[in-house]
Amino acid sequence: MRRLGDGVEAALHCAVVLAALPTNKVLTGKNLAELHGLSESYLLKHLRALTTACVTEAVPGPRGGYRLTRPAADISMLDVVEAIDGKDPAFVCREIRQKGDVTTNAQCAYKKDCFIKRRMLAAEALWRDALRNQTLQDMLDDGVVEIGDHNKEAVEAFVAEKQR
Amino acid sequence: MRRLGDGVEAALHCAVVLAALPTNKVLTGKNLAELHGLSESYLLKHLRALTTACVTEAVPGPRGGYRLTRPAADISMLDVVEAIDGKDPAFVCREIRQKGDVTTNAQCAYKKDCFIKRRMLAAEALWRDALRNQTLQDMLDDGVVEIGDHNKEAVEAFVAEKQR
Repeated sequence: MRRLGDGVEAALHCAVVLAALPTNKVLTGKNLAELHGLSESYLLKHLRALTTACVTEAVPGPRGGYRLTRPAADISMLDVVEAIDGKDPAFVCREIRQKGDVTTNAQCAYKKDCFIKRRMLAAEALWRDALRNQTLQDMLDDGVVEIGDHNKEAVEAFVAEKQR
Repeated sequence: MRRLGDGVEAALHCAVVLAALPTNKVLTGKNLAELHGLSESYLLKHLRALTTACVTEAVPGPRGGYRLTRPAADISMLDVVEAIDGKDPAFVCREIRQKGDVTTNAQCAYKKDCFIKRRMLAAEALWRDALRNQTLQDMLDDGVVEIGDHNKEAVEAFVAEKQR
């Protein structure tokens, strides 16, 4: 599989942090960049992509920032990944089976999709379905169990101070 | 998911054609290019990648060409895909959770892999496992059922004439 965009990791981490905010509270791109040790300009590109995909919304103004558009249980990992990386299939079928002068180019000979294409797209669908069936809420739940007390408290204190 | 290399489709089609050859027979890159309507130089790059990955072997000399290194049932779709596109994971974890000055960088705080990484890699594994569990023989069997008589006979005649 080709590498996903490196913004995917940052976008998922930011989305999980935003998922933990109280309703209607926001964090700025600067806050999210500081929390994750990333440059603000790098992160803003990906936050804009999340906003374009309606995963986040950008609240304008001096008290503005980013928040999720819907509850954490209604945003899948796939929503975030596709916001950054797009929805195109990974396998591109150029209908090679019809090219060349040996086989016919009469369309009636190709009623079904090529079996190679079908098998490749079915494999992709497993990946896509798995990410569609996991939500930001699932990852919040992971965090409750898995993040150590020190880091949990440090992030909570940072978010409590910065949210607005 | 990012696009796979466009050589993946060509490599899979060529591998299926080679899978149908009698034992020890070969086809040249030129034959395979003609059959698929591709330029020989384009296809040779991908045939070399298949050979490097030990999916095919290149028999040298005036009677040379390409053949599979093992029976069709022992070569998975994943073998072919990874020959062209590599084996790197799609999701790259840069340990963002440890970056930034809010969280600690003490390694004892990160005993388990990040839950985001685990979930992303588990989804990829479904894709990879699906391709690992399908072989060139499965696609040969598809072809018997699905390829129309005209094309089946045309390809068989071409291969019978060109193989050596």
